Amino acid sequence: MDVSNAPGTVTWAETRERPAVRLIDQTLLPGELVLKDCYVLEEVCEAIKSLRVRGAPAIGCSAALGVALAVYTSGADSTGELVSVVEEAAEQLAATRPTAVNLFWALERMRRVAQGSTDLPPEAFRHVLLEEAQEIVGDDLDHCRRIGEYGAELIPQGANILTHCNAGALATAGYGTALGVIRAAHQQGKDIHVWADETRPLLQGARLTAWELEQEGIACTIICDSVAASLMQAGKVDCVVVGADRIAANGDVANKIGTYAVAIAADRHDVPFYVAAPLSTLDLSLASGQEIPIEQRSPEEVCYLAGRVAAPICPEGADVYNPAFDVTPAELIAAIITEVGIARQPLAASLAGLSSGDSSTGSCSSS
Amino acid sequence: MDVSNAPGTVTWAETRERPAVRLIDQTLLPGELVLKDCYVLEEVCEAIKSLRVRGAPAIGCSAALGVALAVYTSGADSTGELVSVVEEAAEQLAATRPTAVNLFWALERMRRVAQGSTDLPPEAFRHVLLEEAQEIVGDDLDHCRRIGEYGAELIPQGANILTHCNAGALATAGYGTALGVIRAAHQQGKDIHVWADETRPLLQGARLTAWELEQEGIACTIICDSVAASLMQAGKVDCVVVGADRIAANGDVANKIGTYAVAIAADRHDVPFYVAAPLSTLDLSLASGQEIPIEQRSPEEVCYLAGRVAAPICPEGADVYNPAFDVTPAELIAAIITEVGIARQPLAASLAGLSSGDSSTGSCSSS
Repeated sequence: MDVSNAPGTVTWAETRERPAVRLIDQTLLPGELVLKDCYVLEEVCEAIKSLRVRGAPAIGCSAALGVALAVYTSGADSTGELVSVVEEAAEQLAATRPTAVNLFWALERMRRVAQGSTDLPPEAFRHVLLEEAQEIVGDDLDHCRRIGEYGAELIPQGANILTHCNAGALATAGYGTALGVIRAAHQQGKDIHVWADETRPLLQGARLTAWELEQEGIACTIICDSVAASLMQAGKVDCVVVGADRIAANGDVANKIGTYAVAIAADRHDVPFYVAAPLSTLDLSLASGQEIPIEQRSPEEVCYLAGRVAAPICPEGADVYNPAFDVTPAELIAAIITEVGIARQPLAASLAGLSSGDSSTGSCSSS
Repeated sequence: MDVSNAPGTVTWAETRERPAVRLIDQTLLPGELVLKDCYVLEEVCEAIKSLRVRGAPAIGCSAALGVALAVYTSGADSTGELVSVVEEAAEQLAATRPTAVNLFWALERMRRVAQGSTDLPPEAFRHVLLEEAQEIVGDDLDHCRRIGEYGAELIPQGANILTHCNAGALATAGYGTALGVIRAAHQQGKDIHVWADETRPLLQGARLTAWELEQEGIACTIICDSVAASLMQAGKVDCVVVGADRIAANGDVANKIGTYAVAIAADRHDVPFYVAAPLSTLDLSLASGQEIPIEQRSPEEVCYLAGRVAAPICPEGADVYNPAFDVTPAELIAAIITEVGIARQPLAASLAGLSSGDSSTGSCSSS
């Protein structure tokens, strides 16, 4: 089964003549592969908040489709009212999760299209909004494939690649960013092996990355997060590839909590540390990673092992600190792989060049 | 409740006129505090293997009492036969776990006493063996208190201290090594706060360290292991204190998997990294940590979350790598706190001085 194509992390569906945002409920994997149809905006918001759908690009796609769902389920019969529906939907969706910038990027794109379509009749307005959302989804899949192509050049034959969390088909419209690079290297016959950090507290590595790689027959070994440094010490890691939730203008990268610890260990052992992300993850409005808001999540995710145990693993009422992300400074990152090329050090100039379409700026390469 | 004294991690018990090695079943904490009586050597071996009792010093104490149990439960009526019983018991116990050297140290001490007591009648021989085992247990408690006293000097007022795994009363005869230092600092009124790494896969930090500290009213916050580095990045950790399973002559320290990752992060952020351990953890026969055997444990500990979930968290049959320990090189360690003083850099000379009773050697301090 090629999970990069089927069943689709998040798609638009017309079921029983009702439109729906259809997504893989990732909280149930790898035990069950269940498609959840969200018929109202609130269900999309809940799905994002509770991580049924997660991963920065997939959150962006879900938000865009969520806005389309809001206008399709609205009974409003004037375009003016529908513009308000878009604004309100965007506000609700923006409040779901604070760190992944793709969410805000996608909402901004939807709002801009809405504001530029006020002269259309209601049905045409609805149609244009849905087309924009579907373009965001389609572009994301396309960008992931390009990221894979660029990134695969960085992966040596026979490499042992370490990844953290899940930046795979499940975290995007399909194919994946970090796992897109790994997929592409595998498809080139590079005989690679992946070390998958289990990624506490919600175990996206053990649950999702291991599942995706198994589907494609890519060799994978699950480790507890704390094992990564000792593997590098033993010379068993050739490179690290991770995704990103937001990248500041200077190249600092917010990603799943624990990414920074991996980057430190990689730096100490001269293991190249790569970030794979579409340009929609880039937030040039922030000078550095210190400005990126870091989501704090519920202690229950830690105490109840992601809802998998009935009795808490720690004393009842114990104090828990559960940040969802951390920031890896640009200095620890060898390269950022995007859909338009590879940004290299110095990352600030290179990212600016790539995002403006000028690949001669900085030391980016888009060959 | 002062868990440093009651109920006793591992003790000798005479129940219903049958001798037993009594231990707290740590696999059931923090949900239940259950004392398990081991009536035969095999039960002691099983308890060590399955981590009902764990922590290098506590394993040493359990092994010593296990040897005593073997001679007390043996029907042999000659001292010669009892010497063989000791040898066989030592062999069985030595096969339980490979990394903690305190196990082999305690067994060697018991064998030496047995070999020096061949002229005693059987009952006196049994008595001498039990006395030796109880001395090992009593000494361990005493050593932990001394480690606490020396180590507390290194802890600043109001410190945020990070610890990994459980090097507490539960890992020793009582009081603890790393947690002994924390206890002593708390008893000096230093208003400290502890960050407890949950310590995957078996969660000794979330289960045991958080429980011990709660009993004593020491402020503690549980974090996923991958959070430690970002806390240091944010300036929220003043020092790290951990235990040890084996220390090589050059000062390299084997300890619970993940310790090395913490040490790397501490080094990057100039956070002092301290190891607290009795001299019985020192293995001068090994030149460096590369020679320390690292135990590999079952994948089930990772997949089934330490036996706490029925369905695996990862795809069925997924490949898992589960080393129990890693080695932190001496260069990352600011000091090793022992019961006879503090070994400082260069650790090799300082440890040699402390272990030979010459505190003027190296830069050890035993003031």
